[in-house]
Amino acid sequence: MTARARFRLRIYHDAMVAIGPGKVDLLEAIAQTGSISAAARAMGMSYRRAWLLVEELNQALAQPAVMTATGGAHGGGARLTGTGEEIIRRYRVIEDAAMQAAADDLAVLTGMLKSEDG
Amino acid sequence: MTARARFRLRIYHDAMVAIGPGKVDLLEAIAQTGSISAAARAMGMSYRRAWLLVEELNQALAQPAVMTATGGAHGGGARLTGTGEEIIRRYRVIEDAAMQAAADDLAVLTGMLKSEDG
Repeated sequence: MTARARFRLRIYHDAMVAIGPGKVDLLEAIAQTGSISAAARAMGMSYRRAWLLVEELNQALAQPAVMTATGGAHGGGARLTGTGEEIIRRYRVIEDAAMQAAADDLAVLTGMLKSEDG
Repeated sequence: MTARARFRLRIYHDAMVAIGPGKVDLLEAIAQTGSISAAARAMGMSYRRAWLLVEELNQALAQPAVMTATGGAHGGGARLTGTGEEIIRRYRVIEDAAMQAAADDLAVLTGMLKSEDG
């Protein structure tokens, strides 16, 4: 049986998802690739979609998570701020803590699933 | 600021979501209303959709979560089995445990959001 569990944490700001799994994955991709367009490609989403997610996130935060350089010698590049790095780190810590806290009950729930060998 | 965080736990069985937030909410509605059709109405979903979710869940489990009585004096009624009740209970325990384990880091993340008073 290939059961697996996943927590998805979303932090809402009024009705909007301010911080969620898509935005955190995107931040990681920007950190790895150095640009929004390369991050979008790596995630299989449009540049427009990635740009909008970054805008939404930056607007929801007191300090921006991503800085972009639209002009100059390195035009088009993007990098995370300390805030952006902190969001990734805390989000992953939360996911791990949630999984560990839930481990015993999760094992019971997945044990209630039909076995493929059965 | 009205920030709030929500964990959504999904347990996958191969590629399918075997147990997730929609199915657990539906189990609770069936327990409260005593039928799939009334539960569907209470959740604003079609009877067909609710019925398919129940079928999917029952198929994924070693023991069914919902018993239906399609004939007889109480035709159309549905009730949870012990398995169904256990799924709800464990799922809510897991959500609470995850929230408690994550509380400190969550407070930091929500504190990074823009204040509406700012």
